[in-house]
Amino acid sequence: MRVLGFDPGTATTGYGVVEGKGTRLTHIAHGIIATPPGQPFATRLRTIFEESQALIARYEPDAVAVEKLYFSRNVTTGITVAQARGVIALACELAGKPIGEFSPLEVKNAVVGYGKATKQQVQDMVKILLNLEDRPRPDDAADAIALAICQIHAGRLGALHDR
Amino acid sequence: MRVLGFDPGTATTGYGVVEGKGTRLTHIAHGIIATPPGQPFATRLRTIFEESQALIARYEPDAVAVEKLYFSRNVTTGITVAQARGVIALACELAGKPIGEFSPLEVKNAVVGYGKATKQQVQDMVKILLNLEDRPRPDDAADAIALAICQIHAGRLGALHDR
Repeated sequence: MRVLGFDPGTATTGYGVVEGKGTRLTHIAHGIIATPPGQPFATRLRTIFEESQALIARYEPDAVAVEKLYFSRNVTTGITVAQARGVIALACELAGKPIGEFSPLEVKNAVVGYGKATKQQVQDMVKILLNLEDRPRPDDAADAIALAICQIHAGRLGALHDR
Repeated sequence: MRVLGFDPGTATTGYGVVEGKGTRLTHIAHGIIATPPGQPFATRLRTIFEESQALIARYEPDAVAVEKLYFSRNVTTGITVAQARGVIALACELAGKPIGEFSPLEVKNAVVGYGKATKQQVQDMVKILLNLEDRPRPDDAADAIALAICQIHAGRLGALHDR
């Protein structure tokens, strides 16, 4: 099962592609979609949409994972993140890819096995699980990889329950 | 100048089309894009996106108007509204339509001439300005018409300042 994870943002959307075969996880790719701050918001949404479509076409994932959104802190940032998330979800839907949504708690539990794990602990586990030399950079890409791993775990559990 | 106004929402997105020639405003159309509550959110976003594209193609507006988002009350609703707004903005951008964003205060000032006007006063003025027999229904469509009128006023002011 190959999963493309997205950590949406207007300025920087992280992505990560992970392949899961049996209990083995393989890192395929990670990076960011960046949009210049001076552009109109609709132009930035278009870039995020079109680059998401390109990533789906390039990596042909079986599923996509995005973070569940909760706005507790910065509401204005939350609006722009939700708009970015909307166009990413649209790109997945138009490509016929199932979308998994996971909370930060679910990601931490899946990757570290501990819901109160720090961001750094999550990144260290991502490095270990994928046998990488360093923690993936930048943070948004690392978060996207963690989301992809979470989706693969969820898929495995689903397969287990289906038996 | 013909403007298509959108009042975004996941369940119900209102739209309204208004033509402005000189000081005369003409009602062209209004209605809603409705999505069933049982559907996955990405499917609903797809419907909103594709119907927005269809409305843009059908009414060929010179510009589109959407409400500026501020989340103060219901944060969860706010997330879904922002996602819907994102795919509507994307549809406009892909069609090359300029997007005007207006706050409720700006809409009230443009339509009623009074920033503290009630929703009902706005709808009554929409009825009078467009020479309609009744207030447009439902509320989301009436709000979308008011946004379109606001955009036409803003365009006029722009033309005035350009002289």
